[in-house]
Amino acid sequence: GPFRPPRGLEKPPEPVIDHFGFAEDRTFKQRYLIADQHWKKDTGSILFYTGNEGDIAWFANNTGFMWNVAEEFDAILVFAEHRYYGDSLPFGNKSYTDAKHLNYLSSQQALADFAVLIQHLKNTIPGTENTPVIAIGGSYGGMLAAWFRMKYPHIVIGALAASAPIWQFDSLVPCGSFYKIVTEDFKKSGAGCSETIQNSWAAIKRIVDTGLQWLSHTFRLCSPLKTKTDVINFREWLRGTWIYVAMVDYPYEAAFLQPLPAWPVKAICKYLKNPKLPDRLLLQNIFQAVNIYYNYTGHASCLNLTQTTTKSLGLRGWSYQACTEMVMPMCSDGINDMFEPQKWDFHAYSEECFKAWGVRPRPSWIPTFYGGKNISAHSNIIFSNGGLDPWSGGGVTKNITDTLVAIMIPEGAHHLDLRSNSPFDPTSVLQARLLEVHYMKLWLQKHERVKTCPK
Amino acid sequence: GPFRPPRGLEKPPEPVIDHFGFAEDRTFKQRYLIADQHWKKDTGSILFYTGNEGDIAWFANNTGFMWNVAEEFDAILVFAEHRYYGDSLPFGNKSYTDAKHLNYLSSQQALADFAVLIQHLKNTIPGTENTPVIAIGGSYGGMLAAWFRMKYPHIVIGALAASAPIWQFDSLVPCGSFYKIVTEDFKKSGAGCSETIQNSWAAIKRIVDTGLQWLSHTFRLCSPLKTKTDVINFREWLRGTWIYVAMVDYPYEAAFLQPLPAWPVKAICKYLKNPKLPDRLLLQNIFQAVNIYYNYTGHASCLNLTQTTTKSLGLRGWSYQACTEMVMPMCSDGINDMFEPQKWDFHAYSEECFKAWGVRPRPSWIPTFYGGKNISAHSNIIFSNGGLDPWSGGGVTKNITDTLVAIMIPEGAHHLDLRSNSPFDPTSVLQARLLEVHYMKLWLQKHERVKTCPK
Repeated sequence: GPFRPPRGLEKPPEPVIDHFGFAEDRTFKQRYLIADQHWKKDTGSILFYTGNEGDIAWFANNTGFMWNVAEEFDAILVFAEHRYYGDSLPFGNKSYTDAKHLNYLSSQQALADFAVLIQHLKNTIPGTENTPVIAIGGSYGGMLAAWFRMKYPHIVIGALAASAPIWQFDSLVPCGSFYKIVTEDFKKSGAGCSETIQNSWAAIKRIVDTGLQWLSHTFRLCSPLKTKTDVINFREWLRGTWIYVAMVDYPYEAAFLQPLPAWPVKAICKYLKNPKLPDRLLLQNIFQAVNIYYNYTGHASCLNLTQTTTKSLGLRGWSYQACTEMVMPMCSDGINDMFEPQKWDFHAYSEECFKAWGVRPRPSWIPTFYGGKNISAHSNIIFSNGGLDPWSGGGVTKNITDTLVAIMIPEGAHHLDLRSNSPFDPTSVLQARLLEVHYMKLWLQKHERVKTCPK
Repeated sequence: GPFRPPRGLEKPPEPVIDHFGFAEDRTFKQRYLIADQHWKKDTGSILFYTGNEGDIAWFANNTGFMWNVAEEFDAILVFAEHRYYGDSLPFGNKSYTDAKHLNYLSSQQALADFAVLIQHLKNTIPGTENTPVIAIGGSYGGMLAAWFRMKYPHIVIGALAASAPIWQFDSLVPCGSFYKIVTEDFKKSGAGCSETIQNSWAAIKRIVDTGLQWLSHTFRLCSPLKTKTDVINFREWLRGTWIYVAMVDYPYEAAFLQPLPAWPVKAICKYLKNPKLPDRLLLQNIFQAVNIYYNYTGHASCLNLTQTTTKSLGLRGWSYQACTEMVMPMCSDGINDMFEPQKWDFHAYSEECFKAWGVRPRPSWIPTFYGGKNISAHSNIIFSNGGLDPWSGGGVTKNITDTLVAIMIPEGAHHLDLRSNSPFDPTSVLQARLLEVHYMKLWLQKHERVKTCPK
C-alpha cells in the first residue's frame, strides 16, 4: 500500500495525555499515516495533514490533493490522527465515559500532539531535521492547520486551511449565513427546490397528529416515529440531510459522507420541482430526495435517523467539542432561508450540553485564544473557500495581508480543492489548486533563502 | 494611593481555573492593580505588567520604569498578578496542597488569564476598546511578556521582555553560563574575591567533621547545623546567596530581594580579599560577606537558611514550576566558575521533583511550545539584558530581526532597566530605557497607521 513507516518509525509516538498539566502524566498511542515514496532529502518538504474529527485513513483517502502534489514537492506525506478519534483514544474504550475522561479533547491538546509528532519525526527520520513542514487540513482540520501556523510558526512554515470556518464563532459573522448558503445551493439547483423544502416543514406539522405511521412508512424509517421527541428528531434529521448534501455537492460521483451521484443537490432537486403539491405528495417527493442521500447505492433496507454520515466521522466526539470550545452560533429565519425559524439560544444550548456531557460551553474562548478577526500579525496561511459550501460563511474570504490570502472557488463545495484531480473539476478549483501550490512554493523559497543566506 | 479602579471595575475579573479543560469549571479571583492618572482616551495606551512569581504590589513597587513613562504614553498602568502567587490563589489556602490542586499553575494558564483580563478591561473601561496594549515584564515575567506577544499578538502589539532567559532551557545554551557570569561579577568586583569563595568550599569540607558547632556559631545560624543534610543545605544557601547578590548588583541602595547597599557585590568583596587565609579566618570573612546580604539593616538576630529573599517572592510556587515546565539546566565545573563542580543531572532532578511535588518535569516542552531559538516569525519584542545578570546567559542578546531586538546593558544587573530612574544609573541603562521607549513608540505609530490607513 502507499503507507509505509520509514526505518526507526515502527513505534508510534506517545504524546502525553495532558500537555497543559502535570498531574496526569500518562501517554497514549497516536495513530498517523506516512508515505515517503516521493521524499527527496535535499529538496523535499513534509506535507502534514492536521487530522480532524474522524478516522485518519478515511481523511487520507479523501485528500487526493496531497497525493497529487507529493512528487512536485519531493514530499513526505504525513496524516496525523486527532486525539479521541479513530484509533487514537487516550483512555481506550473508556475515553468517552464522562467529562473527566473527555477533559483532554480540545484543539489546543490536538495542536500540541501535532507539534510533538513533528519533532518526533524530525528526530527519527534521518535527513528531515531541517525539512520545512507545511500544514494542510480541511474543515475543522483546516482551522487546526491555520491555528497551527498561528501558534507554532516555528514548526510549520505555512498552512493551507481549506473550508475552515475560523470565524463561525461568537458574533464574528451573522448567525444566519450558514443556512442562507444551504438555501442558495438548493435555489440554484432547480426551480421550486428550496420552496418545496420550505413548505415541507408545515406539511409535516399538519400530518403528525394523525399520520405518524404514514410518515414512518413513507420515509422507510428503521424505527417508526412515536413520540414528540421522535418527530423533533425527524425534523432535525431532515435539516441535517439538506446541510450534508449541500456540503458534499461535488461535480462527480463521490463517497465522502455518503455514496452520492455527481452534483447531488441537482439530483435531489429533480424530485422537488413542485412546492404547491398536497402534503402527502409533497412529502413523498421529499422522501425521494432524501433517499438519494441515504440510499444512492440501493442497499439500505430502511433509513436510520441516527446514522447521518459515514461512521468514519466522529460525530460523538464533535458533539463534545461543540459543547466546549467549538460553539458555532447558527440561526434561521425562514425568510432568507428554507428552514424553520430558529433563533440562536445560547442558554438552551448550554443546558443541553450540560445534560449531554456535564460541561458548559465557553463561546468566546476560541476568539480570545486564536484572535478572532484580528489575525494580521500572522503569515503564510491560505484560506480556501467553496462558494457552495455553507461553511464559507464563517471562512476568511478576502485577503488579510500579502501572506494571509483567501481563495474563492465559486463552484466548490466543502474543501473540494483537497480532493483528487478529476476530469469533472470546474475550472475554478483547478485554478485554486494551482494558486495553492504557487503560495506553498513561495513559502519554501523564502524559507530556503532565510536558511542559506543569513545577514 | 496611586492605584484606583476606574468606574465599573470594582469587581475583580474571575478567570476560569482551567482554560484548557472543561471538567473543572470553577473560577477564581485574580488580583490586579491599575493606575489611570495619565490615561488619555484618544492618544493613550495600556502598559500591562505580566506578573511573575510573587506578590504583585511588590513588583509594581519595583517597576518604576512604568511609572516613569506613564505620562509620556498617556497610559493606563495595569499590574496583573500571576495565578498561585500573592492573593491570586485558585483554591485559596488549599492551592498548594498537592499536585491536583497545583495542576493549573503554568505559564499557559497565566497567559490565558492575562488575555481574559485585558478583554475584561477593554469591555469595561469606556474608551479603551481600541487602545493598544504593550506587555512589560522582567525575569520570568519578561518571558511571559515575550511569550504573550508570541501567542496572543492580537491582544498585545508588542512586548518589553527585560532580563528574560527564554533560552535557559533544554540545551539551547551551555548549562555553565549562569555560574560563569556570577563568577565574573565577583571577579571584577575585587581582587581575590572569587578565589576566596572558590576556596571556601574546601574549607567547609575540612571543617565540618569537627567544627559544625563553630560553623553554626560563626554564621549566627538560627538553627545549628547537625546532620549531613544540614551541611548540604548550608552549602546550597551560600551558593544561593552569591547568585542573589549578583542578580541585584544595582548601583544604588535598594531593597528588592533584601535591603542592600549600592553595588553590593563590591561591598561583599571588601571582606574577601585574601583567598589564602587559614580555613577559620577565611570562613569568618565569608560570614561577614554573607552578613551584608542577610543583615544590611542590622536587625537580624540570627541567619535563617530557609529565608533567602523577601517573602514577597513566591519561591514555593516557583519550585513547583521549576519541577514541571521551567526546567533550566545549570552546571558548574569549578574551573570556569567559583562553585563546586556539579554536572546537570536530569534524572536526579526529576527524582527530587517527584519526591517534592509528585510530578515529573518535561524539559523540552517550553522550547516545543514557545519555539526555542526559532522565533523569527514573531515581531515587536525587545529583549533587554544586564551584563552583570547571570540570567543574561539564557537571554536573547543579539537582534533576531528588525522587530525582534536585543539591548545589552553592560553595567546592569537583573532587569535594572525596569527600575525607577536614579541619579546613580549608569549611562548604559539610561540609553537602554530611551531605546525601549523609542521601539514602543514605533509599535504604537505602526499600529495607528494600520488602524487609520487601510489600503
